[in-house]
Amino acid sequence: MLIVADRPGLKRALAAREEVALVPTMGNLHDGHLKLVELARGRSACVVVSIFVNPLQFGPSEDLATYPRTLAEDCAKLERAGASVVFAPSETVLYPRPQRVFVEPPPIAGDLCGAFRPGHFRGVATVVLKLFHLVGPRFAVFGKKDYQQLFIIRAMAEQLDVPVEIVAGETLRAADGLALSSRNGYLGPVERAQAPRLYQVLRECAQALTAGTRCADVEQAGRARLESHGWRVDYVAVRSQATLSPPVRGDTALVVLGAAWLGRTRLIDNVEVLIGEDSGL
Amino acid sequence: MLIVADRPGLKRALAAREEVALVPTMGNLHDGHLKLVELARGRSACVVVSIFVNPLQFGPSEDLATYPRTLAEDCAKLERAGASVVFAPSETVLYPRPQRVFVEPPPIAGDLCGAFRPGHFRGVATVVLKLFHLVGPRFAVFGKKDYQQLFIIRAMAEQLDVPVEIVAGETLRAADGLALSSRNGYLGPVERAQAPRLYQVLRECAQALTAGTRCADVEQAGRARLESHGWRVDYVAVRSQATLSPPVRGDTALVVLGAAWLGRTRLIDNVEVLIGEDSGL
Repeated sequence: MLIVADRPGLKRALAAREEVALVPTMGNLHDGHLKLVELARGRSACVVVSIFVNPLQFGPSEDLATYPRTLAEDCAKLERAGASVVFAPSETVLYPRPQRVFVEPPPIAGDLCGAFRPGHFRGVATVVLKLFHLVGPRFAVFGKKDYQQLFIIRAMAEQLDVPVEIVAGETLRAADGLALSSRNGYLGPVERAQAPRLYQVLRECAQALTAGTRCADVEQAGRARLESHGWRVDYVAVRSQATLSPPVRGDTALVVLGAAWLGRTRLIDNVEVLIGEDSGL
Repeated sequence: MLIVADRPGLKRALAAREEVALVPTMGNLHDGHLKLVELARGRSACVVVSIFVNPLQFGPSEDLATYPRTLAEDCAKLERAGASVVFAPSETVLYPRPQRVFVEPPPIAGDLCGAFRPGHFRGVATVVLKLFHLVGPRFAVFGKKDYQQLFIIRAMAEQLDVPVEIVAGETLRAADGLALSSRNGYLGPVERAQAPRLYQVLRECAQALTAGTRCADVEQAGRARLESHGWRVDYVAVRSQATLSPPVRGDTALVVLGAAWLGRTRLIDNVEVLIGEDSGL
Protein backbone atom coordinates (compact mmCIF):
# COMPACT_ATOMS: atom_id res chain seq x y z
CA MET A 1 0.00 0.00 0.00
CA LEU A 2 1.33 3.41 -0.98
CA ILE A 3 0.85 6.44 1.25
CA VAL A 4 1.04 9.73 -0.63
CA ALA A 5 0.54 13.28 0.51
CA ASP A 6 0.72 15.47 -2.58
CA ARG A 7 -0.25 15.72 -6.24
CA PRO A 8 2.99 14.36 -7.74
CA GLY A 9 2.94 11.42 -5.29
CA LEU A 10 -0.66 10.68 -6.16
CA LYS A 11 0.09 10.90 -9.87
CA ARG A 12 2.97 8.45 -9.57
CA ALA A 13 0.90 6.09 -7.44
CA LEU A 14 -1.90 6.08 -10.01
CA ALA A 15 0.23 5.88 -13.16
CA ALA A 16 -0.73 2.78 -15.13
CA ARG A 17 -3.76 2.10 -12.94
CA GLU A 18 -6.66 1.11 -15.12
CA GLU A 19 -9.76 1.68 -13.04
CA VAL A 20 -9.78 3.16 -9.58
CA ALA A 21 -12.39 3.10 -6.81
CA LEU A 22 -12.17 5.99 -4.36
CA VAL A 23 -13.30 6.06 -0.72
CA PRO A 24 -13.18 9.64 0.56
CA THR A 25 -12.86 9.84 4.36
CA MET A 26 -11.86 12.23 7.11
CA GLY A 27 -9.80 9.47 8.76
CA ASN A 28 -10.17 8.13 12.31
CA LEU A 29 -11.38 5.03 10.58
CA HIS A 30 -13.80 2.52 12.07
CA ASP A 31 -15.35 -0.67 10.74
CA GLY A 32 -17.93 1.36 8.82
CA HIS A 33 -15.16 2.89 6.73
CA LEU A 34 -13.49 -0.50 6.26
CA LYS A 35 -16.80 -1.85 4.99
CA LEU A 36 -16.74 0.90 2.36
CA VAL A 37 -13.22 -0.17 1.39
CA GLU A 38 -14.50 -3.72 1.01
CA LEU A 39 -17.30 -2.45 -1.22
CA ALA A 40 -14.75 -0.51 -3.27
CA ARG A 41 -12.58 -3.62 -3.66
CA GLY A 42 -15.58 -5.36 -5.17
CA ARG A 43 -15.62 -2.71 -7.89
CA SER A 44 -11.98 -2.22 -8.67
CA ALA A 45 -8.58 -3.78 -8.05
CA CYS A 46 -7.16 -0.38 -7.15
CA VAL A 47 -8.77 1.23 -4.11
CA VAL A 48 -7.70 4.74 -3.17
CA VAL A 49 -8.71 5.98 0.28
CA SER A 50 -8.41 9.70 0.86
CA ILE A 51 -7.96 11.00 4.39
CA PHE A 52 -8.55 14.70 4.76
CA VAL A 53 -10.29 16.69 7.46
CA ASN A 54 -11.74 19.31 5.17
CA PRO A 55 -11.87 22.76 6.81
CA LEU A 56 -14.29 23.97 4.12
CA GLN A 57 -17.10 21.84 5.54
CA PHE A 58 -16.72 22.89 9.19
CA GLY A 59 -18.52 25.91 10.62
CA PRO A 60 -16.60 28.40 12.78
CA SER A 61 -18.05 26.94 16.01
CA GLU A 62 -17.64 23.30 14.98
CA ASP A 63 -15.12 20.61 15.90
CA LEU A 64 -12.48 21.11 13.19
CA ALA A 65 -9.67 21.57 15.74
CA THR A 66 -10.64 18.62 17.90
CA TYR A 67 -11.68 16.22 15.13
CA PRO A 68 -9.59 13.07 15.78
CA ARG A 69 -6.54 12.66 13.52
CA THR A 70 -5.07 9.16 13.68
CA LEU A 71 -3.17 8.71 10.42
CA ALA A 72 -0.80 5.93 11.55
CA GLU A 73 -3.60 3.74 12.91
CA ASP A 74 -5.75 4.52 9.87
CA CYS A 75 -3.01 3.38 7.50
CA ALA A 76 -2.48 0.15 9.47
CA LYS A 77 -6.21 -0.60 9.20
CA LEU A 78 -6.30 0.24 5.50
CA GLU A 79 -3.30 -1.96 4.78
CA ARG A 80 -5.12 -4.89 6.40
CA ALA A 81 -8.31 -3.98 4.55
CA GLY A 82 -6.49 -4.22 1.22
CA ALA A 83 -6.45 -0.59 0.12
CA SER A 84 -3.95 0.19 -2.64
CA VAL A 85 -3.23 3.86 -2.05
CA VAL A 86 -3.82 6.26 0.84
CA PHE A 87 -3.98 9.90 -0.22
CA ALA A 88 -3.54 12.04 2.89
CA PRO A 89 -2.88 15.61 1.76
CA SER A 90 -2.29 18.55 4.06
CA GLU A 91 -4.57 21.57 3.93
CA THR A 92 -1.84 23.46 2.03
CA VAL A 93 -1.67 20.76 -0.61
CA LEU A 94 -5.40 20.71 -1.24
CA TYR A 95 -5.92 24.46 -0.83
CA PRO A 96 -2.63 26.10 -1.83
CA ARG A 97 -4.53 29.36 -2.16
CA PRO A 98 -7.72 30.52 -0.43
CA GLN A 99 -10.59 28.69 -2.08
CA ARG A 100 -12.71 31.04 -4.21
CA VAL A 101 -14.42 28.57 -6.53
CA PHE A 102 -17.02 26.21 -5.13
CA VAL A 103 -19.62 23.70 -6.07
CA GLU A 104 -22.99 25.27 -5.39
CA PRO A 105 -25.02 22.27 -4.24
CA PRO A 106 -28.76 21.91 -4.90
CA PRO A 107 -31.20 23.84 -2.67
CA ILE A 108 -31.81 20.78 -0.47
CA ALA A 109 -28.29 21.44 0.87
CA GLY A 110 -29.81 24.26 2.93
CA ASP A 111 -32.29 21.93 4.59
CA LEU A 112 -31.93 19.20 7.27
CA CYS A 113 -28.27 19.20 8.41
CA GLY A 114 -27.59 22.12 6.08
CA ALA A 115 -30.04 24.29 8.02
CA PHE A 116 -27.89 23.79 11.12
CA ARG A 117 -24.51 23.74 9.38
CA PRO A 118 -24.56 26.61 6.85
CA GLY A 119 -22.10 26.03 4.03
CA HIS A 120 -21.37 22.46 5.14
CA PHE A 121 -22.51 20.76 1.95
CA ARG A 122 -20.92 23.40 -0.24
CA GLY A 123 -17.64 22.47 1.45
CA VAL A 124 -18.33 18.75 1.09
CA ALA A 125 -19.30 18.95 -2.57
CA THR A 126 -16.31 21.14 -3.39
CA VAL A 127 -13.71 18.88 -1.78
CA VAL A 128 -15.31 15.74 -3.19
CA LEU A 129 -15.22 17.18 -6.71
CA LYS A 130 -11.58 18.16 -6.21
CA LEU A 131 -10.79 14.61 -5.07
CA PHE A 132 -12.66 13.21 -8.07
CA HIS A 133 -10.56 15.38 -10.38
CA LEU A 134 -7.31 14.51 -8.61
CA VAL A 135 -7.89 10.76 -8.38
CA GLY A 136 -10.00 10.24 -11.49
CA PRO A 137 -11.92 7.26 -10.10
CA ARG A 138 -14.44 5.17 -11.99
CA PHE A 139 -16.31 4.52 -8.72
CA ALA A 140 -16.60 6.41 -5.45
CA VAL A 141 -18.08 4.93 -2.30
CA PHE A 142 -20.00 6.87 0.33
CA GLY A 143 -21.79 5.62 3.45
CA LYS A 144 -25.55 5.90 3.87
CA LYS A 145 -25.16 7.14 7.44
CA ASP A 146 -24.45 10.53 5.86
CA TYR A 147 -27.65 10.24 3.86
CA GLN A 148 -28.00 13.87 2.84
CA GLN A 149 -24.33 14.02 1.85
CA LEU A 150 -24.78 10.95 -0.34
CA PHE A 151 -27.88 12.52 -1.91
CA ILE A 152 -26.07 15.76 -2.66
CA ILE A 153 -23.03 14.02 -4.12
CA ARG A 154 -25.28 11.95 -6.36
CA ALA A 155 -27.03 15.15 -7.47
CA MET A 156 -23.69 16.80 -8.15
CA ALA A 157 -22.42 13.84 -10.13
CA GLU A 158 -25.59 13.71 -12.19
CA GLN A 159 -26.03 17.42 -12.83
CA LEU A 160 -22.38 18.18 -13.54
CA ASP A 161 -21.98 15.00 -15.63
CA VAL A 162 -19.15 13.81 -13.41
CA PRO A 163 -17.91 10.54 -14.92
CA VAL A 164 -17.86 8.74 -11.57
CA GLU A 165 -20.33 6.09 -10.46
CA ILE A 166 -21.48 6.79 -6.91
CA VAL A 167 -21.77 3.64 -4.80
CA ALA A 168 -23.66 3.66 -1.49
CA GLY A 169 -22.55 1.59 1.49
CA GLU A 170 -25.01 0.52 4.19
CA THR A 171 -24.58 1.95 7.67
CA LEU A 172 -22.62 -0.27 10.00
CA ARG A 173 -23.91 -0.39 13.58
CA ALA A 174 -22.72 -1.44 17.01
CA ALA A 175 -24.53 -4.41 18.59
CA ASP A 176 -26.88 -1.99 20.36
CA GLY A 177 -27.81 -0.25 17.09
CA LEU A 178 -25.66 2.89 17.31
CA ALA A 179 -24.41 3.85 13.84
CA LEU A 180 -20.61 3.75 13.72
CA SER A 181 -19.19 7.27 13.54
CA SER A 182 -15.90 8.93 14.38
CA ARG A 183 -17.83 11.36 16.55
CA ASN A 184 -18.99 8.50 18.83
CA GLY A 185 -15.52 8.81 20.35
CA TYR A 186 -16.59 12.12 21.87
CA LEU A 187 -19.27 10.40 23.99
CA GLY A 188 -18.78 9.81 27.71
CA PRO A 189 -19.96 6.46 29.13
CA VAL A 190 -23.40 7.73 30.14
CA GLU A 191 -23.89 9.38 26.74
CA ARG A 192 -22.67 6.24 24.99
CA ALA A 193 -25.33 4.22 26.81
CA GLN A 194 -27.98 6.73 25.73
CA ALA A 195 -26.74 7.07 22.13
CA PRO A 196 -28.51 4.04 20.56
CA ARG A 197 -31.81 5.74 21.29
CA LEU A 198 -31.48 7.88 18.15
CA TYR A 199 -31.65 4.84 15.90
CA GLN A 200 -34.35 3.30 18.10
CA VAL A 201 -36.56 6.38 17.81
CA LEU A 202 -36.02 6.63 14.03
CA ARG A 203 -37.08 3.00 13.69
CA GLU A 204 -40.18 3.70 15.77
CA CYS A 205 -40.92 6.59 13.41
CA ALA A 206 -40.57 4.24 10.44
CA GLN A 207 -42.96 1.77 12.05
CA ALA A 208 -45.48 4.51 12.74
CA LEU A 209 -45.29 5.54 9.06
CA THR A 210 -45.98 2.00 7.86
CA ALA A 211 -48.90 1.93 10.30
CA GLY A 212 -50.33 4.97 8.53
CA THR A 213 -49.45 7.79 10.95
CA ARG A 214 -49.13 11.19 9.30
CA CYS A 215 -45.60 12.52 8.72
CA ALA A 216 -46.00 15.62 10.87
CA ASP A 217 -47.24 13.51 13.79
CA VAL A 218 -44.40 11.05 13.35
CA GLU A 219 -41.82 13.83 13.34
CA GLN A 220 -43.31 15.48 16.39
CA ALA A 221 -43.49 12.25 18.37
CA GLY A 222 -39.91 11.31 17.44
CA ARG A 223 -38.60 14.68 18.53
CA ALA A 224 -40.56 14.52 21.80
CA ARG A 225 -39.24 11.02 22.57
CA LEU A 226 -35.64 12.16 22.17
CA GLU A 227 -36.15 15.36 24.10
CA SER A 228 -37.76 13.46 26.96
CA HIS A 229 -34.48 11.55 27.26
CA GLY A 230 -32.35 14.66 27.41
CA TRP A 231 -31.39 15.03 23.73
CA ARG A 232 -31.26 18.43 22.09
CA VAL A 233 -32.89 17.76 18.74
CA ASP A 234 -31.87 19.57 15.54
CA TYR A 235 -34.48 17.72 13.51
CA VAL A 236 -36.46 14.54 13.06
CA ALA A 237 -37.78 14.57 9.51
CA VAL A 238 -39.68 12.27 7.17
CA ARG A 239 -38.57 12.74 3.60
CA SER A 240 -38.93 11.24 0.14
CA GLN A 241 -35.92 9.10 -0.82
CA ALA A 242 -36.15 10.43 -4.37
CA THR A 243 -36.04 14.14 -3.54
CA LEU A 244 -35.11 14.36 0.15
CA SER A 245 -37.98 16.86 0.29
CA PRO A 246 -41.15 16.34 2.33
CA PRO A 247 -43.08 13.46 0.73
CA VAL A 248 -45.94 14.16 -1.61
CA ARG A 249 -48.93 11.94 -2.25
CA GLY A 250 -47.79 8.78 -3.99
CA ASP A 251 -44.28 8.76 -2.50
CA THR A 252 -43.76 5.29 -1.09
CA ALA A 253 -39.98 5.21 -0.64
CA LEU A 254 -39.38 7.37 2.43
CA VAL A 255 -36.55 7.95 4.85
CA VAL A 256 -36.67 9.18 8.42
CA LEU A 257 -33.66 11.31 9.27
CA GLY A 258 -32.57 12.63 12.63
CA ALA A 259 -29.84 14.85 14.03
CA ALA A 260 -29.58 15.46 17.74
CA TRP A 261 -27.10 16.37 20.44
CA LEU A 262 -26.00 14.42 23.47
CA GLY A 263 -24.11 17.00 25.47
CA ARG A 264 -21.52 18.45 23.10
CA THR A 265 -21.77 15.65 20.56
CA ARG A 266 -24.00 15.85 17.52
CA LEU A 267 -25.15 12.50 16.15
CA ILE A 268 -27.04 11.77 12.93
CA ASP A 269 -28.77 8.67 11.66
CA ASN A 270 -31.52 7.60 9.29
CA VAL A 271 -33.88 4.74 8.49
CA GLU A 272 -35.31 3.99 5.08
CA VAL A 273 -38.90 2.81 4.95
CA LEU A 274 -41.35 1.75 2.26
CA ILE A 275 -45.02 2.56 2.83
CA GLY A 276 -48.16 1.56 0.94
CA GLU A 277 -49.41 3.90 -1.75
CA ASP A 278 -52.61 4.58 0.13
CA SER A 279 -50.88 5.53 3.35
CA GLY A 280 -51.85 8.97 4.61
CA LEU A 281 -49.08 11.50 4.56
CA MET B 1 -15.76 14.32 -39.03
CA LEU B 2 -18.47 12.94 -36.77
CA ILE B 3 -21.45 15.04 -35.72
CA VAL B 4 -23.06 13.84 -32.52
CA ALA B 5 -25.92 15.23 -30.48
CA ASP B 6 -26.15 13.14 -27.33
CA ARG B 7 -24.13 11.35 -24.65
CA PRO B 8 -24.11 7.88 -26.25
CA GLY B 9 -23.10 9.38 -29.61
CA LEU B 10 -20.31 11.34 -27.96
CA LYS B 11 -19.15 8.27 -26.07
CA ARG B 12 -18.98 6.22 -29.26
CA ALA B 13 -17.19 9.02 -31.11
CA LEU B 14 -14.56 9.28 -28.37
CA ALA B 15 -14.04 5.57 -27.75
CA ALA B 16 -10.38 4.68 -28.35
CA ARG B 17 -9.38 8.33 -28.61
CA GLU B 18 -6.18 8.85 -26.70
CA GLU B 19 -5.98 12.57 -26.06
CA VAL B 20 -8.64 15.08 -26.96
CA ALA B 21 -8.56 18.85 -27.34
CA LEU B 22 -11.89 20.59 -26.84
CA VAL B 23 -13.05 23.89 -28.31
CA PRO B 24 -16.31 24.94 -26.63
CA THR B 25 -18.37 27.33 -28.77
CA MET B 26 -21.90 28.65 -29.14
CA GLY B 27 -21.73 28.10 -32.89
CA ASN B 28 -22.18 30.71 -35.64
CA LEU B 29 -18.52 30.17 -36.24
CA HIS B 30 -16.18 32.78 -37.67
CA ASP B 31 -12.46 32.76 -38.40
CA GLY B 32 -11.73 33.45 -34.73
CA HIS B 33 -13.27 30.10 -33.81
CA LEU B 34 -11.44 28.36 -36.63
CA LYS B 35 -8.19 29.79 -35.32
CA LEU B 36 -8.99 28.13 -31.98
CA VAL B 37 -9.56 24.85 -33.81
CA GLU B 38 -6.16 25.26 -35.43
CA LEU B 39 -4.63 25.85 -32.01
CA ALA B 40 -6.38 22.72 -30.71
CA ARG B 41 -5.05 20.68 -33.64
CA GLY B 42 -1.57 21.70 -32.58
CA ARG B 43 -2.20 20.04 -29.23
CA SER B 44 -4.05 16.90 -30.13
CA ALA B 45 -4.92 14.76 -33.14
CA CYS B 46 -8.54 14.60 -31.97
CA VAL B 47 -10.30 17.95 -31.82
CA VAL B 48 -13.82 18.08 -30.44
CA VAL B 49 -15.81 21.26 -31.05
CA SER B 50 -18.93 21.69 -28.96
CA ILE B 51 -21.72 23.89 -30.26
CA PHE B 52 -24.27 24.82 -27.66
CA VAL B 53 -26.09 28.08 -27.01
CA ASN B 54 -26.18 27.73 -23.24
CA PRO B 55 -29.36 29.21 -21.75
CA LEU B 56 -27.76 29.20 -18.29
CA GLN B 57 -25.46 32.06 -19.24
CA PHE B 58 -28.10 34.36 -20.74
CA GLY B 59 -30.04 36.84 -18.63
CA PRO B 60 -33.82 37.10 -19.04
CA SER B 61 -33.53 40.27 -21.17
CA GLU B 62 -30.62 39.02 -23.28
CA ASP B 63 -30.37 37.63 -26.79
CA LEU B 64 -30.83 33.89 -26.17
CA ALA B 65 -33.77 33.63 -28.58
CA THR B 66 -32.16 35.61 -31.38
CA TYR B 67 -28.61 34.29 -30.99
CA PRO B 68 -27.69 33.01 -34.48
CA ARG B 69 -27.89 29.23 -34.91
CA THR B 70 -26.17 28.03 -38.06
CA LEU B 71 -25.30 24.37 -37.45
CA ALA B 72 -25.01 23.23 -41.08
CA GLU B 73 -22.65 26.06 -42.05
CA ASP B 74 -20.69 25.58 -38.82
CA CYS B 75 -20.18 21.88 -39.54
CA ALA B 76 -19.00 22.61 -43.09
CA LYS B 77 -16.44 25.09 -41.74
CA LEU B 78 -15.28 22.68 -39.03
CA GLU B 79 -14.90 19.86 -41.54
CA ARG B 80 -12.62 22.08 -43.61
CA ALA B 81 -10.77 23.18 -40.47
CA GLY B 82 -9.96 19.57 -39.60
CA ALA B 83 -12.13 19.05 -36.51
CA SER B 84 -12.68 15.40 -35.60
CA VAL B 85 -15.99 15.55 -33.73
CA VAL B 86 -18.76 18.13 -33.44
CA PHE B 87 -20.81 17.78 -30.28
CA ALA B 88 -24.04 19.73 -30.76
CA PRO B 89 -26.45 18.73 -28.01
CA SER B 90 -29.94 20.09 -27.54
CA GLU B 91 -30.91 21.85 -24.34
CA THR B 92 -32.77 18.71 -23.23
CA VAL B 93 -29.67 16.60 -23.69
CA LEU B 94 -27.44 18.85 -21.64
CA TYR B 95 -30.08 19.77 -19.05
CA PRO B 96 -32.49 16.82 -18.89
CA ARG B 97 -33.74 18.19 -15.58
CA PRO B 98 -33.75 21.78 -14.31
CA GLN B 99 -30.19 22.61 -13.29
CA ARG B 100 -29.84 22.84 -9.51
CA VAL B 101 -26.09 22.31 -9.11
CA PHE B 102 -23.70 24.99 -10.30
CA VAL B 103 -20.12 26.05 -10.28
CA GLU B 104 -19.86 29.07 -8.02
CA PRO B 105 -17.19 31.12 -9.78
CA PRO B 106 -14.72 33.34 -7.91
CA PRO B 107 -15.91 36.79 -6.71
CA ILE B 108 -14.40 38.52 -9.77
CA ALA B 109 -17.30 36.95 -11.69
CA GLY B 110 -19.53 39.64 -10.21
CA ASP B 111 -17.34 42.42 -11.59
CA LEU B 112 -16.78 43.81 -15.13
CA CYS B 113 -19.18 41.93 -17.46
CA GLY B 114 -20.56 40.03 -14.46
CA ALA B 115 -21.79 43.30 -12.93
CA PHE B 116 -23.96 43.84 -16.02
CA ARG B 117 -24.83 40.20 -16.64
CA PRO B 118 -25.70 38.70 -13.22
CA GLY B 119 -25.23 34.94 -13.18
CA HIS B 120 -23.54 34.92 -16.59
CA PHE B 121 -20.25 33.42 -15.45
CA ARG B 122 -21.95 30.97 -13.15
CA GLY B 123 -23.72 29.68 -16.25
CA VAL B 124 -20.53 29.67 -18.28
CA ALA B 125 -18.48 27.88 -15.63
CA THR B 126 -21.20 25.30 -15.07
CA VAL B 127 -21.64 24.37 -18.72
CA VAL B 128 -17.90 24.34 -19.34
CA LEU B 129 -17.35 21.96 -16.43
CA LYS B 130 -20.15 19.73 -17.74
CA LEU B 131 -18.52 19.70 -21.17
CA PHE B 132 -15.15 18.89 -19.59
CA HIS B 133 -16.72 15.94 -17.77
CA LEU B 134 -18.56 14.74 -20.87
CA VAL B 135 -15.67 15.05 -23.30
CA GLY B 136 -12.75 14.40 -20.93
CA PRO B 137 -10.28 16.54 -22.87
CA ARG B 138 -6.61 16.93 -22.05
CA PHE B 139 -6.70 20.48 -23.48
CA ALA B 140 -9.43 23.06 -23.87
CA VAL B 141 -9.07 26.19 -25.98
CA PHE B 142 -10.71 29.54 -25.23
CA GLY B 143 -10.35 32.87 -27.00
CA LYS B 144 -8.83 35.90 -25.32
CA LYS B 145 -11.58 38.15 -26.64
CA ASP B 146 -13.67 36.80 -23.76
CA TYR B 147 -10.91 37.74 -21.36
CA GLN B 148 -12.87 37.54 -18.13
CA GLN B 149 -14.38 34.22 -19.18
CA LEU B 150 -10.91 32.82 -19.83
CA PHE B 151 -9.74 34.11 -16.45
CA ILE B 152 -12.67 32.50 -14.63
CA ILE B 153 -12.27 29.18 -16.42
CA ARG B 154 -8.59 29.13 -15.54
CA ALA B 155 -9.49 29.86 -11.91
CA MET B 156 -12.09 27.09 -11.95
CA ALA B 157 -9.67 24.60 -13.45
CA GLU B 158 -7.01 25.48 -10.92
CA GLN B 159 -9.16 25.62 -7.81
CA LEU B 160 -11.26 22.54 -8.60
CA ASP B 161 -8.20 20.59 -9.79
CA VAL B 162 -9.80 19.98 -13.16
CA PRO B 163 -7.36 17.81 -15.14
CA VAL B 164 -7.64 19.95 -18.27
CA GLU B 165 -4.98 22.31 -19.56
CA ILE B 166 -6.54 25.63 -20.53
CA VAL B 167 -5.10 27.07 -23.75
CA ALA B 168 -5.69 30.70 -24.70
CA GLY B 169 -6.15 31.80 -28.31
CA GLU B 170 -5.35 35.35 -29.44
CA THR B 171 -8.23 37.52 -30.59
CA LEU B 172 -8.71 37.56 -34.34
CA ARG B 173 -9.63 40.93 -35.83
CA ALA B 174 -11.08 42.33 -39.01
CA ALA B 175 -8.74 44.50 -41.10
CA ASP B 176 -10.12 47.59 -39.35
CA GLY B 177 -9.37 46.14 -35.90
CA LEU B 178 -12.84 44.98 -34.86
CA ALA B 179 -12.56 41.77 -32.83
CA LEU B 180 -14.37 38.94 -34.57
CA SER B 181 -17.56 38.02 -32.74
CA SER B 182 -20.81 36.34 -33.61
CA ARG B 183 -22.60 39.39 -32.26
CA ASN B 184 -21.01 41.58 -34.97
CA GLY B 185 -23.70 40.14 -37.19
CA TYR B 186 -26.26 42.19 -35.28
CA LEU B 187 -24.64 45.45 -36.42
CA GLY B 188 -26.20 47.59 -39.13
CA PRO B 189 -23.83 49.19 -41.67
CA VAL B 190 -23.47 52.47 -39.78
CA GLU B 191 -22.83 50.60 -36.51
CA ARG B 192 -20.36 48.30 -38.24
CA ALA B 193 -18.40 51.35 -39.42
CA GLN B 194 -18.37 52.69 -35.86
CA ALA B 195 -17.58 49.36 -34.18
CA PRO B 196 -13.75 49.38 -34.57
CA ARG B 197 -13.62 52.39 -32.28
CA LEU B 198 -13.88 50.15 -29.21
CA TYR B 199 -10.54 48.50 -29.95
CA GLN B 200 -9.09 51.85 -30.99
CA VAL B 201 -10.06 53.47 -27.68
CA LEU B 202 -8.75 50.53 -25.65
CA ARG B 203 -5.42 50.80 -27.47
CA GLU B 204 -5.31 54.52 -26.71
CA CYS B 205 -5.95 53.64 -23.06
CA ALA B 206 -3.03 51.19 -23.16
CA GLN B 207 -0.79 53.84 -24.67
CA ALA B 208 -1.80 56.33 -21.99
CA LEU B 209 -0.93 53.76 -19.32
CA THR B 210 2.53 53.18 -20.75
CA ALA B 211 2.94 56.97 -20.82
CA GLY B 212 2.28 57.00 -17.06
CA THR B 213 -1.32 58.22 -16.90
CA ARG B 214 -3.20 57.11 -13.78
CA CYS B 215 -5.68 54.23 -14.18
CA ALA B 216 -8.71 56.23 -13.07
CA ASP B 217 -7.91 58.97 -15.58
CA VAL B 218 -7.37 56.44 -18.35
CA GLU B 219 -10.70 54.76 -17.63
CA GLN B 220 -12.56 58.05 -17.52
CA ALA B 221 -11.03 59.29 -20.76
CA GLY B 222 -11.77 55.99 -22.55
CA ARG B 223 -15.37 56.04 -21.45
CA ALA B 224 -15.76 59.70 -22.49
CA ARG B 225 -14.26 59.01 -25.92
CA LEU B 226 -16.73 56.21 -26.59
CA GLU B 227 -19.70 58.14 -25.24
CA SER B 228 -18.83 61.14 -27.41
CA HIS B 229 -19.24 58.81 -30.41
CA GLY B 230 -22.64 57.58 -29.34
CA TRP B 231 -21.70 54.41 -27.49
CA ARG B 232 -23.47 53.41 -24.27
CA VAL B 233 -20.59 52.25 -22.12
CA ASP B 234 -20.93 49.44 -19.55
CA TYR B 235 -17.31 49.82 -18.46
CA VAL B 236 -13.80 50.73 -19.49
CA ALA B 237 -11.50 49.25 -16.86
CA VAL B 238 -7.79 48.87 -16.24
CA ARG B 239 -7.02 45.64 -14.42
CA SER B 240 -4.16 43.42 -13.35
CA GLN B 241 -3.69 40.45 -15.67
CA ALA B 242 -2.90 38.26 -12.66
CA THR B 243 -6.03 39.00 -10.64
CA LEU B 244 -8.35 40.88 -12.98
CA SER B 245 -8.79 43.24 -10.02
CA PRO B 246 -7.74 46.89 -10.05
CA PRO B 247 -3.94 46.99 -10.25
CA VAL B 248 -1.89 47.50 -7.10
CA ARG B 249 1.54 49.09 -6.89
CA GLY B 250 4.06 46.85 -8.61
CA ASP B 251 1.59 45.31 -11.09
CA THR B 252 3.19 45.65 -14.49
CA ALA B 253 1.09 43.24 -16.56
CA LEU B 254 -2.18 45.05 -17.08
CA VAL B 255 -5.18 44.70 -19.33
CA VAL B 256 -7.67 47.33 -20.45
CA LEU B 257 -11.13 45.87 -20.87
CA GLY B 258 -14.20 47.47 -22.34
CA ALA B 259 -17.84 46.62 -22.87
CA ALA B 260 -20.15 49.00 -24.66
CA TRP B 261 -23.32 49.12 -26.69
CA LEU B 262 -23.87 50.27 -30.24
CA GLY B 263 -27.64 50.45 -30.47
CA ARG B 264 -28.89 47.05 -29.35
CA THR B 265 -25.57 45.28 -29.73
CA ARG B 266 -23.16 44.85 -26.84
CA LEU B 267 -19.51 44.50 -27.85
CA ILE B 268 -16.54 43.61 -25.67
CA ASP B 269 -12.82 43.77 -26.28
CA ASN B 270 -9.55 44.08 -24.40
CA VAL B 271 -5.91 45.04 -24.84
CA GLU B 272 -3.05 43.69 -22.76
CA VAL B 273 -0.31 46.12 -21.84
CA LEU B 274 2.96 45.97 -19.93
CA ILE B 275 3.96 49.06 -18.00
CA GLY B 276 7.16 49.98 -16.18
CA GLU B 277 7.37 49.21 -12.47
CA ASP B 278 7.65 52.88 -11.61
CA SER B 279 4.58 53.92 -13.57
CA GLY B 280 2.04 55.71 -11.46
CA LEU B 281 -1.22 53.81 -10.97
